[in-house]
Amino acid sequence: MIKVGILGATGFTGEKLVEILLSHPEVKVTYIASRTKEPVLYSEIFPKFYKKTSIKCQPLNIKEAIDSCDLLFLSLPHTVSMQFVPKILKKGKKVIDLSADYRFKKAAAYKSLYEKEHQDKKNLKKSVYGLPELFKEEIKKAQLIANPGCYPTSIILALYPLLSEKLVKGKIVIDSKSAITGAGRKASIDYHYSDLANNFWAYKPFVHQHQPEVAEILGQNLIKSLTFSFLPQVASFEAGIYSTIHLSFKKKINKNILDKIYNKYYQSYPFIRLGTKIPKLKDVVGTNFCDIGFAVDKKGQNAVVISAIDNLVKGAAGQAIQNMNLMFGFKETTGFLSL
Amino acid sequence: MIKVGILGATGFTGEKLVEILLSHPEVKVTYIASRTKEPVLYSEIFPKFYKKTSIKCQPLNIKEAIDSCDLLFLSLPHTVSMQFVPKILKKGKKVIDLSADYRFKKAAAYKSLYEKEHQDKKNLKKSVYGLPELFKEEIKKAQLIANPGCYPTSIILALYPLLSEKLVKGKIVIDSKSAITGAGRKASIDYHYSDLANNFWAYKPFVHQHQPEVAEILGQNLIKSLTFSFLPQVASFEAGIYSTIHLSFKKKINKNILDKIYNKYYQSYPFIRLGTKIPKLKDVVGTNFCDIGFAVDKKGQNAVVISAIDNLVKGAAGQAIQNMNLMFGFKETTGFLSL
Amino acid sequence: MIKVGILGATGFTGEKLVEILLSHPEVKVTYIASRTKEPVLYSEIFPKFYKKTSIKCQPLNIKEAIDSCDLLFLSLPHTVSMQFVPKILKKGKKVIDLSADYRFKKAAAYKSLYEKEHQDKKNLKKSVYGLPELFKEEIKKAQLIANPGCYPTSIILALYPLLSEKLVKGKIVIDSKSAITGAGRKASIDYHYSDLANNFWAYKPFVHQHQPEVAEILGQNLIKSLTFSFLPQVASFEAGIYSTIHLSFKKKINKNILDKIYNKYYQSYPFIRLGTKIPKLKDVVGTNFCDIGFAVDKKGQNAVVISAIDNLVKGAAGQAIQNMNLMFGFKETTGFLSL
Amino acid sequence: MIKVGILGATGFTGEKLVEILLSHPEVKVTYIASRTKEPVLYSEIFPKFYKKTSIKCQPLNIKEAIDSCDLLFLSLPHTVSMQFVPKILKKGKKVIDLSADYRFKKAAAYKSLYEKEHQDKKNLKKSVYGLPELFKEEIKKAQLIANPGCYPTSIILALYPLLSEKLVKGKIVIDSKSAITGAGRKASIDYHYSDLANNFWAYKPFVHQHQPEVAEILGQNLIKSLTFSFLPQVASFEAGIYSTIHLSFKKKINKNILDKIYNKYYQSYPFIRLGTKIPKLKDVVGTNFCDIGFAVDKKGQNAVVISAIDNLVKGAAGQAIQNMNLMFGFKETTGFLSL
Repeated sequence: MIKVGILGATGFTGEKLVEILLSHPEVKVTYIASRTKEPVLYSEIFPKFYKKTSIKCQPLNIKEAIDSCDLLFLSLPHTVSMQFVPKILKKGKKVIDLSADYRFKKAAAYKSLYEKEHQDKKNLKKSVYGLPELFKEEIKKAQLIANPGCYPTSIILALYPLLSEKLVKGKIVIDSKSAITGAGRKASIDYHYSDLANNFWAYKPFVHQHQPEVAEILGQNLIKSLTFSFLPQVASFEAGIYSTIHLSFKKKINKNILDKIYNKYYQSYPFIRLGTKIPKLKDVVGTNFCDIGFAVDKKGQNAVVISAIDNLVKGAAGQAIQNMNLMFGFKETTGFLSL
Repeated sequence: MIKVGILGATGFTGEKLVEILLSHPEVKVTYIASRTKEPVLYSEIFPKFYKKTSIKCQPLNIKEAIDSCDLLFLSLPHTVSMQFVPKILKKGKKVIDLSADYRFKKAAAYKSLYEKEHQDKKNLKKSVYGLPELFKEEIKKAQLIANPGCYPTSIILALYPLLSEKLVKGKIVIDSKSAITGAGRKASIDYHYSDLANNFWAYKPFVHQHQPEVAEILGQNLIKSLTFSFLPQVASFEAGIYSTIHLSFKKKINKNILDKIYNKYYQSYPFIRLGTKIPKLKDVVGTNFCDIGFAVDKKGQNAVVISAIDNLVKGAAGQAIQNMNLMFGFKETTGFLSL
Repeated sequence: MIKVGILGATGFTGEKLVEILLSHPEVKVTYIASRTKEPVLYSEIFPKFYKKTSIKCQPLNIKEAIDSCDLLFLSLPHTVSMQFVPKILKKGKKVIDLSADYRFKKAAAYKSLYEKEHQDKKNLKKSVYGLPELFKEEIKKAQLIANPGCYPTSIILALYPLLSEKLVKGKIVIDSKSAITGAGRKASIDYHYSDLANNFWAYKPFVHQHQPEVAEILGQNLIKSLTFSFLPQVASFEAGIYSTIHLSFKKKINKNILDKIYNKYYQSYPFIRLGTKIPKLKDVVGTNFCDIGFAVDKKGQNAVVISAIDNLVKGAAGQAIQNMNLMFGFKETTGFLSL
Repeated sequence: MIKVGILGATGFTGEKLVEILLSHPEVKVTYIASRTKEPVLYSEIFPKFYKKTSIKCQPLNIKEAIDSCDLLFLSLPHTVSMQFVPKILKKGKKVIDLSADYRFKKAAAYKSLYEKEHQDKKNLKKSVYGLPELFKEEIKKAQLIANPGCYPTSIILALYPLLSEKLVKGKIVIDSKSAITGAGRKASIDYHYSDLANNFWAYKPFVHQHQPEVAEILGQNLIKSLTFSFLPQVASFEAGIYSTIHLSFKKKINKNILDKIYNKYYQSYPFIRLGTKIPKLKDVVGTNFCDIGFAVDKKGQNAVVISAIDNLVKGAAGQAIQNMNLMFGFKETTGFLSL
């Protein structure tokens, strides 16, 4: 039984962290904090937690947070996490940061994307990118996890086997559709129900900060001579990311070969599902699964790889808890229903 | 660890039963059946169960079902259950029937509503109506449970304390809104996405079969001299029932008194939440909770009582599993997340 | 061809006014204004108007507005309209106010509901309540129209024939469900897509300001000895109000009698549809129709009357334009598609 | 005033045709037919047409249809239209076929896609592909129009200027998202509200019949040396197609150049909108507009072109009526609101 805290517990991701952690058999949630000025019952803020927890949400006090927990989840805005991480590490506690603050090894890359000088360059190197299907062993030993972005999770998992096998050439087109919760819980006219319902739109073509994150993690070795074209889009489904990735092969490939490759990379990973069918988004909503499917054209030259995740679970809170399970030696699937 | 089977595992309710039971720590799902002609992987029918279970859905064979289970859930159409129940009881096994077949004590009442002669009058008396907040002790000892209808669950739980206290007079108006899943999984043009999306309509005014069910369960003693006016409606939310019940008091009442009464009846029941706020439907979706709220007019003469449930959970599968927990001596909340 | 202006053109109602008026054959939209600081293309604010109009939205200048128009639509917040109306009337121009400012004959009633002293008591008496199915002749001659609230439109139209015939007794329960657009276009966390999608909730039980509006318009003569219980609710459909009104009769009534009564009152009104079926909300969305249906119980003692409107059309902008048609001697249905 | 008939008036497209045509000032709808066995009021089938039309839907009688109309819209399943077209043409009447039957010049292409021998090869050559932005002059003189598929409309309009200018090289990735209405009005479990709501999925990767249609219309000259990769997807928005088209340039291009090119091709076309912003789907829903936007990467090598249409309007019924306007010498925008 470990004691955990969640800083930033009233955002969409923070709320999902609390929700999953409350039923995790190895965890006691001992501290949650937000921008509140006075301690307030969490079930007062979110009535759906009534009779599930009587914990109070606290005004953030980092000393108190560190003292009362073995592990802290930071579900804070980008550029805020790096103010707290050094203090947490110094006290020997573990931390999973769900912001982008520790995803890039080089402070310069961070600065160019998030337009702020990095405040904790020292710990950048220590951090491990928390994508268990790629970095399981490092995660087990890590003290600081940089939890992946939602789009990068859906993209890297879909691409990694093919790039590792060096089968892909030319341009990779990534067409991703996300629920609006990816943008955070904000009072904005752009997120008004009436503007989103039944709507659909693309945004930030070619300039979304998650494209460099994908490149950073896959690494120069895997992506050299490849071009990425990433288009994020907002859809009106309640939850999820559905990425369709269009690519071309260096040599003729068929579905059968792809099946073997993906199985080789992912068969031992409990949260990757390689179905025979094309994924449907709702099959992963509310779960930590990443469903991956693919189709090849008749000539065996072009393929589309499709991945579906819940953007707040495998794309954020669920993956963070999967990382926690690995860091503390729990079974990887503990706390996730019926696995 | 008990062995359970689900007959009718591909309807909305059957699917929800499988989903919850798969992660129930005291249960092993050993047999599931549907109209399939050949055994087929359940995860083939519903890909969302892939990597969650490798059970096969069988063509229904009642002997096999009885032999392999301690308890059977019947999620079958009305008039079908009563063909199987006598056989199950004879073999000493327990059964929770989610159809209407055993909800009425008198075969005549059943016949007038479901237009078919009852085939198993003998066991009608044996059956216990599976609403734990009213009949907990009987459920613990029951061999045959008639699981409540979805609307009646939302209505009876909201009304029971006030009627028991004999506070209500005159006409009770019940205005209920339900997700379309209450109508079952059928290929019908009326359930086409395009006809339902953003739509809303009333149906069966004054003649829905759930109104007599409410009256049957509350009993003559509680409802005499009261009139019920029940209007079911189809809403385009994905899941849930939201009932608003308008009533008048015999004497002046205030919110404070109501709070005390509802607490008296429900404080020991883990799935009833008496919040201080008006319930919002989404707070109960995916849970076995019934959220109840109320408001009284300034004169203290009229009130509206509001209840919200997930129609497939507390309104069907979840309640059935709550009943199972009681029948087998498990903790009432076992198998329900974070309780 | 008349010249019209819209003050408050960027709210949901203002936008709908512009949309309908742009294709009205007898109207030229010459002035639109909002809180903008500089003139800005309306199609810049709402790209859906690109290639439909090149009008600019102006910072509100009441003198300019009056000078350039024969008629002004005020789609402004409550308590703001009454600052402009006296000036408009003084210049001999006509005005249709979509706020609540002129809906009550007595300033005291207004004050108790909107918590502000009325600033233009003089013109209160002049105003005509713009519900054409009740006040057609007065509207034709009016200079100042108080356009009805959305809920009251759906409620009064449903009730008026039965109350006029003095058939109803006791308590009238009004259970109304509305799209969120009724609350206005605001950046609020409560209107965030993720909080509203698939949700449903009641609010302001017994205290919504539209209940006194209904009583005011129906008048003491029609409602004496009757009690109203009004419950507004927010639904996640994109547009519309669906009101279900439960009532009891003084004497035995059947569906046939009701058909005759409603036909007597409404047969000459082009926007009231008395179908033989229960209304479905989507049949009126995007139109100025009010669909009314009803059902009577077997004893002929109780009924439910159901009305469906588009809350922004018949419940606001459409009705305002219907009023304009009457005020300027156009055919009542002009500007409404295919009528 | 011309007399028109709609064969197949109860499908989604047929219904939309009736809706728009009823308010078209130059048209009288004189005949509508469906699979009904007896004549039945159209407003009985679709109550939303009550008080809009009292026309009856007839059992299809082709002789009657031809005799009573100047123009017939065929909104029939593929392979059915070609049974009627020869008869209509022989009588000198005009016809707009919304099926795929006359979209391919070569019967062999048709056969390979729709798996049926073409029955009316003679008239294949006569038919004009009804995309006014490409074939306006031919449409004006045509007796037989093959109305474009919904996906091809969104794709061809987005691509045509760039291909005509021979700027594109390599692979063109077309990632399209459509409302389910594109699949027709069928009672299928796959179109059940509960399966579609909040869902999203790809289907028919590389093998959808609309990809060859795009190639056929653009013609060998424009597409030689290019590769197409088309992925259709089902989204849960109520209406619309949103196509994102990813492509690469032969030489360096910037947004400014693209603006000029698209303006050159489309500035005189009333239904193409080249906004400065990325299109949002809901801006075109309910209209005959095709909104086109684009973005270029920093290097000027790659672009994404985005088009948004209402799949039942510009993608089907609206475009058919636009074609009708051209064929009969009406203003191209007649019958479309506020243009």
